[in-house]
Amino acid sequence: MEIRDILKKVDHTLLSQSATWEQVKEICDDAVKYGCASVCIPPSFVSRVAEYVDKKISVCTVIGFPNGYNTTATKRAETRFAVEDGADEIDMVIDVGMLKEKRYDDVLDQIKAVRACCEGKVLKVIIETCLLTEDEIIKMCDIVSASGADYIKTSTGFSTGGATRKDVKLMAENVRNGLKIKAAGGIKSLEDAEDFIKLGADRLGTSRIVKIVKELK
Amino acid sequence: MEIRDILKKVDHTLLSQSATWEQVKEICDDAVKYGCASVCIPPSFVSRVAEYVDKKISVCTVIGFPNGYNTTATKRAETRFAVEDGADEIDMVIDVGMLKEKRYDDVLDQIKAVRACCEGKVLKVIIETCLLTEDEIIKMCDIVSASGADYIKTSTGFSTGGATRKDVKLMAENVRNGLKIKAAGGIKSLEDAEDFIKLGADRLGTSRIVKIVKELK
Repeated sequence: MEIRDILKKVDHTLLSQSATWEQVKEICDDAVKYGCASVCIPPSFVSRVAEYVDKKISVCTVIGFPNGYNTTATKRAETRFAVEDGADEIDMVIDVGMLKEKRYDDVLDQIKAVRACCEGKVLKVIIETCLLTEDEIIKMCDIVSASGADYIKTSTGFSTGGATRKDVKLMAENVRNGLKIKAAGGIKSLEDAEDFIKLGADRLGTSRIVKIVKELK
Repeated sequence: MEIRDILKKVDHTLLSQSATWEQVKEICDDAVKYGCASVCIPPSFVSRVAEYVDKKISVCTVIGFPNGYNTTATKRAETRFAVEDGADEIDMVIDVGMLKEKRYDDVLDQIKAVRACCEGKVLKVIIETCLLTEDEIIKMCDIVSASGADYIKTSTGFSTGGATRKDVKLMAENVRNGLKIKAAGGIKSLEDAEDFIKLGADRLGTSRIVKIVKELK
């Protein structure tokens, strides 16, 4: 696989709690330079980033991140604010506790509520696979496929683990309605990236791939 | 120190990403039974908890948690929703990146904006000491003392470290205007609890102290 075909699928990501504007700008510059799919940054930076990148690259941000246990009202408000600020892509976290309580209709309704606040934008739904059983991952493939979201995403990168080949394969076998897959968390090498793409991932959430490519040059 | 005098200062806390209603109810029952200061739970549970505890104990929740890089607009909205849902105490996280950029006025303005959305409620401001230099901790004591908040709080429990004796001592030396201190994260024993109180903490964010006392009985 050509490196540029991998880079095209990368959401170049900086979600560190203490990220500063200098660091975020560097992520933006690199994402544009290396032809990434988007730059994924905290909500607090969206308006500055949207102005800075000036439509040269998609601006992705995170909602209810990383713990997902914000109320639906808050997730709706945060999504609306992000879109107003200039976000093109929204990566929301599900309410994991709600799923554990088997409140499947509520999980679906919450995703649909966020979907309604970002019509025309790309919506990705983070299910935090490391906290879920195989059955729960399959259930979430079903729910997200019915929600109108564009992607199902493995991980926040802030919990006990990131994307695994096994989970991405399982997701690829269980998505419907053209739902795409984003693998995120712990993607450390070009080999990882290529494996996840071959297993069915259409996007990769990582900062390391761009770093590796920079070092190659 | 009497155990009940320690328990009176405990915000009995469950903020796990996959917490379920059964687990949250147990936290509520124990917090009431053992005479804690409050029960500290995710925003998604506030309305159910407020109804369940029926004013027998204060309901505390978290805002912009744990990463703090939500926008001011989102923190305001989330605070208003939490108060509407029945929260008595609000533990907000500062924007650490904003502090690292030395945008001190913006940090203060954001705290004041949240303060204005929860008038009459207890407001605690989490500064995430493990990510800050000593000078930044002192600066935050100054800012939070001027903000109208009730407490400055060490940690979310989701970053690289929790409360330390050194940081709590430093905070006690630098708060003004009657600002109180909450130590949180990694409080593992009655000895820890007593030490933090002696160093100047008026509240402790922990789930372990109640567990230890239950085992003693």
